[in-house]
Amino acid sequence: MARDERFMPPWTESPPPPGSFRSILKWGGPTEFKHPNRRLYELMKQVFGLTDDDFRARTNTGEMPVAVQQPSRFTAETLADLAAIVGEENVKVDDWSRASVCYGKTMVDVMRLRAGVIENPPDAVVDPRNADDVRRLVEYCNEHRIPIVAFGAGSGVTQGSECVRGGISLRMSTHMKRILSVDPVNQTATVEPGIYGPELEQMLNEAPERFGAPHRYTCGHFPQSFEYSSVGGWVVTRGAGQNSTYYGKIEHLVISQKYVTPVGDVVTVDIPAKATGPDIDQIMIGSEGAYGILVEVTLKLYRYAPENRRRFSFVFRDWESGVEACREIMQGEFGFPSVFRLSDPEETDVAFKLYGVEGTPLEPILAWLGYKPMERCLLLGHTDGDKDLGKLIQRKIRRICRRHGALYATGYVTKRWEHGRFRDPYMREDLGDFGIMLDTLECGVNWANLHHVWSSVREVCHARPGTVCMSHASHFYPQGTNLYFIFIARMDDLEEYKAYQASILDAIQRSGATMSHHHGIGRMTAPWLEAQIGTNQLNVFRALKRHFDPNDIMNPGGTLALDLPEDEARSAT
Amino acid sequence: MARDERFMPPWTESPPPPGSFRSILKWGGPTEFKHPNRRLYELMKQVFGLTDDDFRARTNTGEMPVAVQQPSRFTAETLADLAAIVGEENVKVDDWSRASVCYGKTMVDVMRLRAGVIENPPDAVVDPRNADDVRRLVEYCNEHRIPIVAFGAGSGVTQGSECVRGGISLRMSTHMKRILSVDPVNQTATVEPGIYGPELEQMLNEAPERFGAPHRYTCGHFPQSFEYSSVGGWVVTRGAGQNSTYYGKIEHLVISQKYVTPVGDVVTVDIPAKATGPDIDQIMIGSEGAYGILVEVTLKLYRYAPENRRRFSFVFRDWESGVEACREIMQGEFGFPSVFRLSDPEETDVAFKLYGVEGTPLEPILAWLGYKPMERCLLLGHTDGDKDLGKLIQRKIRRICRRHGALYATGYVTKRWEHGRFRDPYMREDLGDFGIMLDTLECGVNWANLHHVWSSVREVCHARPGTVCMSHASHFYPQGTNLYFIFIARMDDLEEYKAYQASILDAIQRSGATMSHHHGIGRMTAPWLEAQIGTNQLNVFRALKRHFDPNDIMNPGGTLALDLPEDEARSAT
Repeated sequence: MARDERFMPPWTESPPPPGSFRSILKWGGPTEFKHPNRRLYELMKQVFGLTDDDFRARTNTGEMPVAVQQPSRFTAETLADLAAIVGEENVKVDDWSRASVCYGKTMVDVMRLRAGVIENPPDAVVDPRNADDVRRLVEYCNEHRIPIVAFGAGSGVTQGSECVRGGISLRMSTHMKRILSVDPVNQTATVEPGIYGPELEQMLNEAPERFGAPHRYTCGHFPQSFEYSSVGGWVVTRGAGQNSTYYGKIEHLVISQKYVTPVGDVVTVDIPAKATGPDIDQIMIGSEGAYGILVEVTLKLYRYAPENRRRFSFVFRDWESGVEACREIMQGEFGFPSVFRLSDPEETDVAFKLYGVEGTPLEPILAWLGYKPMERCLLLGHTDGDKDLGKLIQRKIRRICRRHGALYATGYVTKRWEHGRFRDPYMREDLGDFGIMLDTLECGVNWANLHHVWSSVREVCHARPGTVCMSHASHFYPQGTNLYFIFIARMDDLEEYKAYQASILDAIQRSGATMSHHHGIGRMTAPWLEAQIGTNQLNVFRALKRHFDPNDIMNPGGTLALDLPEDEARSAT
Repeated sequence: MARDERFMPPWTESPPPPGSFRSILKWGGPTEFKHPNRRLYELMKQVFGLTDDDFRARTNTGEMPVAVQQPSRFTAETLADLAAIVGEENVKVDDWSRASVCYGKTMVDVMRLRAGVIENPPDAVVDPRNADDVRRLVEYCNEHRIPIVAFGAGSGVTQGSECVRGGISLRMSTHMKRILSVDPVNQTATVEPGIYGPELEQMLNEAPERFGAPHRYTCGHFPQSFEYSSVGGWVVTRGAGQNSTYYGKIEHLVISQKYVTPVGDVVTVDIPAKATGPDIDQIMIGSEGAYGILVEVTLKLYRYAPENRRRFSFVFRDWESGVEACREIMQGEFGFPSVFRLSDPEETDVAFKLYGVEGTPLEPILAWLGYKPMERCLLLGHTDGDKDLGKLIQRKIRRICRRHGALYATGYVTKRWEHGRFRDPYMREDLGDFGIMLDTLECGVNWANLHHVWSSVREVCHARPGTVCMSHASHFYPQGTNLYFIFIARMDDLEEYKAYQASILDAIQRSGATMSHHHGIGRMTAPWLEAQIGTNQLNVFRALKRHFDPNDIMNPGGTLALDLPEDEARSAT
């Protein structure tokens, strides 16, 4: 086959300069790259009205060395006190360390890094060695009124770890990333919060060799950020993995926890159900560092048996029939699939380009059968759990999808999706190098309100000309699902982006969806929280804040709208 | 067959005198009776060293008319104010009304009623007509510092609705028992809290006829008290139904709620998952009336399809192998059974008497095969949900049980159990008439600690000579289960009973189990709560109390240990 000699942009193939802003904004390891393929590139040119010439030179690459304008405000005495607690080698005040912990990976973060802007750095980065260090640090900070903000793996998308009031950024993944125990009888693992997904998963997969367990286990939690997210981040943001339809969200996977708070440790017991008052686990999960620092968590484990997996994909004639089939599947009481993802027509179109359907003989066949571009919808997924259960679920899903007019499209598309599942975000760097923004927002919906949310939010996304907005539902329940909005546009102005993002958040709030299904609230979505959940409900969070953190040192400055200036709150009208 | 002419005690066959204490203590409708059978009667005589002569005359029957010593302390003005809110016909101060709402059905309650003792009556019983009435009543009570205690169906077993400080008993089941809506798209029902189990279930079973729904539904929640418990009671105590292994506990079945609190309404949204901070539903569920009054709840529904049910039962050689099989089943990831109940040897022995195994040819066969009395354990259950899923689960269960040496004992025993499932408690009246106490305590455990809890608590139960202690596990999870202790003894002295009960609660606390898996805490178990969950955790409940109820009017006087005098707290040593 002849090599494609047509122009392709000069995608970056070299690691970011050490110490540069780009070394912070880059997704994935320094030598990991994934570039848009030919079809995606052609699509972008077409949608954004660009030519090859627009893709000849990279701009705003953020390759300059990090410089932080604000010097650390900590006195030598404070730094010595911190060093006395954790050891000198675990206290950092250099520019790169301070810059590397204040952002996550939302577009607002990435754009600032490309522009060389470090807002809200901590005064020091501290690497606690264990829970006892955390305890002494929180006591010290509480006594001296120093803000303290936990930092996990830096892939959050809600500006949740920005040190708005300076203070300490507590880097959990340097030392506190141990698996403390695996209990094969209870089928649980107790871990420190700084452990990243892949390390945890590998250790659990190897449980017989490593822990003498009778089975291989899986944590069941695979967010798209899996490679660059930590267990602590999953928990405190109420995250969800892409297999959550089977395994549940993180709040369903946690069995007990230990937090260090200014008023002492909060500890729960590893017993799966109780009737002893309000559920303290469900108060701490999602508290986003505003009440305390997670230092230990016990997770439910599942059996690792990828050989049991049954893959499937279907193409529906339209979004409505796809949604109906998914609802019927989720309410059918025959067990749940694991990965389960329904793309709307616009996303299906892009998915066909990404996963290699476009240009194959399948495409004309689909069109001929009435599955038309920009109408058809792709459903993909696979089962997990027992082999026979997987077979049963696959059979039932197939029957329901057929009844809703869908065409079975084999497990091939799912395999392609799995191949790219964690690596697709790498493409954001390439796009950004040419001034193209790609970001996401997501929300929780029930079935009855799904179409209203989908259409009204998309309408706002599309109100800006030349914007791609792909949507999907990927976390399913008998009573509803989530909706994910991925928007791509040529936009490199931060203020323009913020205004655009705000218009979408306004639309989500107005639509009656929750402001997030699994990303959390952080500071970014905080202005919309009060109007969505209601003042009386936010007052409950505030009462808990007063209890746990009377001096407002825990991740202060707007997290969860707890200490948000009144004029920043946005109310849907 | 010749009629059994042997002596049987004069079990009560007549309705309790209207207006009597017995009319309050009686379990079940006035004309509903279930008597111990011959085998159970013979067992009691044997265990307690009694003869037929001990069963000739009933004592302490509580058939005298109710009289309340403490007059209502409400002034005519207060009563007029209340009448102005709810209407005169909805305010009651007569003795019977006041006596009928202060107790539940724990032995401490029943013994007091038999003795004609009414402690802690409310000053008035009020029947709110709707949420607006509740709102105005809570406002009024908050202004005038009047305690307000919700009363559901009166089958609680934790002294949770006793009006320790007088005030208003808010009877939720008089008017507030409507199904407000059924949503067939979301598959949810929104109901008022006063509705009883059977009425809710029947309406849902008839959803096509009543609500034009496409399916028949079930609420999935069937506690033993099903006939005499209300949805509100299920929710605020964190209850569980006997089918919870499939359907989940009530905290898994609630999707959204509305509470009236002194600081305003707390309302959540009917969206199945979110990442918008702490879970407010899980704060209010289990709050036992101490934070607010539940006025509306939206429940997940399931498909009603009893024809899909697959029943099974097994006999294991011993408790250990039964527990191991159950654990393997719950960790097998092939779906969960619905009713699932493993009896220990002592309970198995009684179950064989109750469910008609004893005396049949099955018994000698069992013994011959090595399933010996007081060693063997009965596991019974059935599936719910999709038909094919049920078949799969049954097949997998059978395979695992066989591997653990169990004998398949057909679905017959399960059918017998189902027949008596709600009516067995009726026998308590008969026993009580002859000075025999039957009561229960239960707790949550994980697998690793199960045997320790089981043996150490039973040891304490048995420390008193002549006491039957039957145990079972009946709510299963991959990470653990509950343990239920049913103790029967000849004991009619209240103080003796309280001391005995306290010794068991001490043992549960010491053992590392939770103080309750599904009954809640109320006032009865409250003294043990702080030592079990820990002071820092109880302080979270206290902080929420201060927020919701700054004047301590909501179910005050020790509920959830919130305002328990310090000297009443019990700490395991």
